[in-house]
Amino acid sequence: MKRVDGRKVDELRPVNITRNFTKYAEGSVLIATGDTKVICNASVEDSVPRFLRGQGQGWVTAEYSMLPRATESRNIREAARGKLSGRTTEIQRLIGRAMRSIVDLDKLGERTIWLDCDVIQADGGTRTASITGAFVALIDALAYLLEKEKINEMPVESMVAATSVGITDGEPLLDLRYQEDSTAQVDLNLVMTEEGKIIEVQGTGEENPFSRKEMDRFLELGEKGVKELVKYQKEALGDRVELLLNGKGNNND
Amino acid sequence: MKRVDGRKVDELRPVNITRNFTKYAEGSVLIATGDTKVICNASVEDSVPRFLRGQGQGWVTAEYSMLPRATESRNIREAARGKLSGRTTEIQRLIGRAMRSIVDLDKLGERTIWLDCDVIQADGGTRTASITGAFVALIDALAYLLEKEKINEMPVESMVAATSVGITDGEPLLDLRYQEDSTAQVDLNLVMTEEGKIIEVQGTGEENPFSRKEMDRFLELGEKGVKELVKYQKEALGDRVELLLNGKGNNND
Amino acid sequence: MKRVDGRKVDELRPVNITRNFTKYAEGSVLIATGDTKVICNASVEDSVPRFLRGQGQGWVTAEYSMLPRATESRNIREAARGKLSGRTTEIQRLIGRAMRSIVDLDKLGERTIWLDCDVIQADGGTRTASITGAFVALIDALAYLLEKEKINEMPVESMVAATSVGITDGEPLLDLRYQEDSTAQVDLNLVMTEEGKIIEVQGTGEENPFSRKEMDRFLELGEKGVKELVKYQKEALGDRVELLLNGKGNNND
Amino acid sequence: MKRVDGRKVDELRPVNITRNFTKYAEGSVLIATGDTKVICNASVEDSVPRFLRGQGQGWVTAEYSMLPRATESRNIREAARGKLSGRTTEIQRLIGRAMRSIVDLDKLGERTIWLDCDVIQADGGTRTASITGAFVALIDALAYLLEKEKINEMPVESMVAATSVGITDGEPLLDLRYQEDSTAQVDLNLVMTEEGKIIEVQGTGEENPFSRKEMDRFLELGEKGVKELVKYQKEALGDRVELLLNGKGNNND
Amino acid sequence: MKRVDGRKVDELRPVNITRNFTKYAEGSVLIATGDTKVICNASVEDSVPRFLRGQGQGWVTAEYSMLPRATESRNIREAARGKLSGRTTEIQRLIGRAMRSIVDLDKLGERTIWLDCDVIQADGGTRTASITGAFVALIDALAYLLEKEKINEMPVESMVAATSVGITDGEPLLDLRYQEDSTAQVDLNLVMTEEGKIIEVQGTGEENPFSRKEMDRFLELGEKGVKELVKYQKEALGDRVELLLNGKGNNND
Amino acid sequence: MKRVDGRKVDELRPVNITRNFTKYAEGSVLIATGDTKVICNASVEDSVPRFLRGQGQGWVTAEYSMLPRATESRNIREAARGKLSGRTTEIQRLIGRAMRSIVDLDKLGERTIWLDCDVIQADGGTRTASITGAFVALIDALAYLLEKEKINEMPVESMVAATSVGITDGEPLLDLRYQEDSTAQVDLNLVMTEEGKIIEVQGTGEENPFSRKEMDRFLELGEKGVKELVKYQKEALGDRVELLLNGKGNNND
Repeated sequence: MKRVDGRKVDELRPVNITRNFTKYAEGSVLIATGDTKVICNASVEDSVPRFLRGQGQGWVTAEYSMLPRATESRNIREAARGKLSGRTTEIQRLIGRAMRSIVDLDKLGERTIWLDCDVIQADGGTRTASITGAFVALIDALAYLLEKEKINEMPVESMVAATSVGITDGEPLLDLRYQEDSTAQVDLNLVMTEEGKIIEVQGTGEENPFSRKEMDRFLELGEKGVKELVKYQKEALGDRVELLLNGKGNNND
Repeated sequence: MKRVDGRKVDELRPVNITRNFTKYAEGSVLIATGDTKVICNASVEDSVPRFLRGQGQGWVTAEYSMLPRATESRNIREAARGKLSGRTTEIQRLIGRAMRSIVDLDKLGERTIWLDCDVIQADGGTRTASITGAFVALIDALAYLLEKEKINEMPVESMVAATSVGITDGEPLLDLRYQEDSTAQVDLNLVMTEEGKIIEVQGTGEENPFSRKEMDRFLELGEKGVKELVKYQKEALGDRVELLLNGKGNNND
Repeated sequence: MKRVDGRKVDELRPVNITRNFTKYAEGSVLIATGDTKVICNASVEDSVPRFLRGQGQGWVTAEYSMLPRATESRNIREAARGKLSGRTTEIQRLIGRAMRSIVDLDKLGERTIWLDCDVIQADGGTRTASITGAFVALIDALAYLLEKEKINEMPVESMVAATSVGITDGEPLLDLRYQEDSTAQVDLNLVMTEEGKIIEVQGTGEENPFSRKEMDRFLELGEKGVKELVKYQKEALGDRVELLLNGKGNNND
Repeated sequence: MKRVDGRKVDELRPVNITRNFTKYAEGSVLIATGDTKVICNASVEDSVPRFLRGQGQGWVTAEYSMLPRATESRNIREAARGKLSGRTTEIQRLIGRAMRSIVDLDKLGERTIWLDCDVIQADGGTRTASITGAFVALIDALAYLLEKEKINEMPVESMVAATSVGITDGEPLLDLRYQEDSTAQVDLNLVMTEEGKIIEVQGTGEENPFSRKEMDRFLELGEKGVKELVKYQKEALGDRVELLLNGKGNNND
Repeated sequence: MKRVDGRKVDELRPVNITRNFTKYAEGSVLIATGDTKVICNASVEDSVPRFLRGQGQGWVTAEYSMLPRATESRNIREAARGKLSGRTTEIQRLIGRAMRSIVDLDKLGERTIWLDCDVIQADGGTRTASITGAFVALIDALAYLLEKEKINEMPVESMVAATSVGITDGEPLLDLRYQEDSTAQVDLNLVMTEEGKIIEVQGTGEENPFSRKEMDRFLELGEKGVKELVKYQKEALGDRVELLLNGKGNNND
Repeated sequence: MKRVDGRKVDELRPVNITRNFTKYAEGSVLIATGDTKVICNASVEDSVPRFLRGQGQGWVTAEYSMLPRATESRNIREAARGKLSGRTTEIQRLIGRAMRSIVDLDKLGERTIWLDCDVIQADGGTRTASITGAFVALIDALAYLLEKEKINEMPVESMVAATSVGITDGEPLLDLRYQEDSTAQVDLNLVMTEEGKIIEVQGTGEENPFSRKEMDRFLELGEKGVKELVKYQKEALGDRVELLLNGKGNNND
């Protein structure tokens, strides 16, 4: 079977991760997975939402948006419509949960890390690219706090990345492009740790319900993709990976 | 291991499904799963959303809400706040996808079926109870269309129900109550057909990532629950099940 | 003259009041007047609105809503439209004033009682049924405070109920059903105490202005209806009526 | 008993009605009742709301607003808050009903008359002053349509005005000023035709329920006030009253 | 060249400034420039916006609105639409900047002066009339604070007024009426001090870009207009001008 | 006098214009003026706003936004707040007017060109950079229409660019960075054609009113800046400039 761009069924699109993409954010990443491009900015704020105040613990949250012309036809700007779509809300909640799942909020202290994921070009998989890129921006923001001695150790318990799997024309495929995604019978997003533990799985067979056996195949493909994505993250982070490992080391003492 | 209400790990709460709960809706169901109670009303509207007009196909959509005092402490009414929460939006999109997944929209004709799920008492699992109850209301609304000769056959491809699975204190449990759910390390919602095909699976291990093997155990528990729920649906539908089977028969010609 | 359901001109529809309808609210009532059914939940909150803070006095307020399919054709959900209709606002302000009129807010202490009136089936007279049912839920919530020794006496000065009167085909009628109401030339809502004192009267003769003499006939019919409704309330409250009388006794010392 | 401004209990404040107050509106009135001043503009629009289209009948509707500093302390502008208060909604619905009650909408043809009541100074009774002033602006707008030969006769069935009655310090008083109104135990607004027929009555005894006998006294006082207000309207309308009477004459043929 | 109302190219429309137009506001002015009429109310509030709290300095801000029928055809009320138009926002920001430019906010103390500009009739130049009128209302509000000894000196550094200039049929004209303005190729608003210093200039040649030389002619015309407007302001203020001069005197010590 | 970055008083920051920045938009430009970076996407839509329908003419409009972390501290996303700030509204109206001023809307035909200006990094002058970049994106979108033979000639009457001028420490400076801008006593934005004609001038001396002579100096500086910016635009457009000139040639016949 030939995919539209010649990839194998279990092959990711090319991944590029650029750190320090903009100059003000504590962490700023441009991630490209194929033609999907997302700016992931991590900002540190010295306060927490009202429901956490005075508990000595931090918070990590995310916001997601697409430029109106990130897609083939122009979308109405959500700020102009005056409200977020259900899709946007779902995605930013997903990114937030993914990031919080690997951060030790107690060690973060009473501060919030905002992860702003702004899609400048969309070709499928924007939510999973956002998670993969946001993790790198998050590490840079945490490293900033470590350098400023606002925290004592890296409050990160694992590396995390995300990818999608789907069935197009009866064939399970890894990392769908928009052309594949829009005709997929099944669409599954997987957020996983470096160690292969599932943080979040969301699979929809609205067009074509799938069996438990197929489910297992999806997870297999997804795990392969996530492990490769983690390699790209490590490469992009360079020396900072040590920091992460050390942080983890301290963590285990 | 003893559950808070004495159930076994793979045991559903008692299920009660009352049809014709209110008098105007074409389908009106009160579903109770333990202390969780949801009114599921199905309404037929003779038009479709703008994006479907003139295509000769129908639409099925859902809305979800909780009475302010469905829960232990009172929640602010979403109509008073002037916007839906992210949680509400996610849930009503989930219910809508679940219902559309088993309806043949072409056979429905240019009309919309609204499924209004209003939770009057919440003790965990309101979204899965909504799906299980909404399916019954949907069948009644479709039977109404059949009787009125607006459609020629039952445009339903399968029965569908939903339940939740979670890990509390390290133990995978079926059909969590609120007390179990609020301390769960993993929370997974499963929408499945009578035949055991997955329509939607959403699992979150924000607190505690889980392995692919655990995932399989969750699906096993969930499948057991869904199959029992389908039995309750059939019992509630009585003769109407025949209608459903005949519809399916025609469907296969 | 024959009414559509065979009632006499001064006859109420059958009234049913079910207490403890849901399990979390301090007071929870399902009231049915004919086919009109309203859930009235009373919730106690340990704070008051900003404009009352620090004055040692309490507050009683109400919210009103209809399920989308409470009526013959489905209404758009106010939470989905993002704002309350003028009709909803008027009704919830009316219920709130009615409840405050018979509560001694000083004796209530710095707490708020919310009365949520959610119509699950509407056949005319939903606002007056809400008032009649909300009063019972209010008493249960106040009894809860008394039992918990948060208040020392029942801060209620009188029983209150409400009904509607109208002219259909030239004939003044008590307690209009929707079919009568929708063709009424005059529509008057009356909120009254057990003793026959008027708390609120709202009469509209938009279609057909009426004389002062007719006004008097409306009040006569309405008073008869309210006094019967109070009997239903007492019956539903059972022993709790004693509590109410004792409260009133203390009140007069 | 001495009122704060020396009036008798059944005495209106001085009334001034200025026609043609602004230059663009088809009817433009400044009404002053004591220190309460309202601009009432009537605008003709050549279409009707969606729910009336194609039925050959017209519509009359009203909007009400107060300048932020119409009152002793500044109020937040509703346009700035982004929504109308419940009070504003209630008042503009009341004005609209009052105007529609005396217009024959079939004779108006498919057009809408907007009555914009903008309070520039408020000293009690702004809603009743709005109704009394809006009626005069409405007549001017209808006369404009008659002159332009868009309608053949005056589609007005009666003159209408409104006033308030209340109990302050135990004494029923006509036409309350703010100082009286804010301490009133009872507050009743009465919209009445020239012939003494009630179009709308809204009485609230939230602070102090009242008897049916007191109700009758309120209506007596209110009727006296309305009849005097109609005289002021006639005086302001001058020759146009003939038009009104002729219109009524035709109406009766 | 003949202007539509016979004015010379550099001639203002007749100006009328009425002080104490309404009774509650600390400063209340009705300004008429030709048929454009604006109520400018100045209100003193004993607090400042959040971003200024605790800094010992005051704030001056403005809001602007038009009655729906201030114009030839009726506009939808912004409170009904639920949001301010871009035009309204721009204008009220402009008025606010103009007023702040001549007030010493440190000398004002921690209080806010609100300038509400409500256009009751619009014939071009409503924003510049609002500024010219608001200045007079501001002085009255500041004089009130001086009399109440809440401030020690007049915190005003200069007089300020505003007018418009435009090119119609190739001819630069001062103070455009709506008929001229709507066909103008260039439209320039000028806010200037009595001394001829520019506070704000906004010129648009969307239809017809203009040269730097023309720009200079516009400023010449505008300066002439502003200086005449300041005379009208002084005349209206009467004795209060002394206060202003004394304030300035102290200011220079 | 030494500027913070060593520039001369009349020197622009380095300018970089990248075309085809994203792949879907008909025109897509990344403009950098120093550290200010804006994505300017031009989208063609085959319809016009309601107020222009059926008139055979086109429309050009703009939207403007900043990524939350485009600035030193994070701003709340306007989509999250549910409304546009006054600043955003003003800027996008300004960009829209600037673009329309040089497009012949009749020759564009019944279609809309949207110019989306999204600031990814802000260091002063974002609105003027948006205009300068949007012009280039606009030309690419128009060239696309020309190639597709949807229009016959380039409907552009002139080149347009924009820059800012201000007074910092008493010295008039061209093209302010944020550090200069935030302490400027005067701030003036200038939109000008290649030929030196003013399309829009907005100058504010809220902190320090300025004289007509200073105004002239600002325009001189600004004109120098705009002419240099037009050179950068031409360089970026390359061959497309010919198209523009030819279009203009036809225009003059």
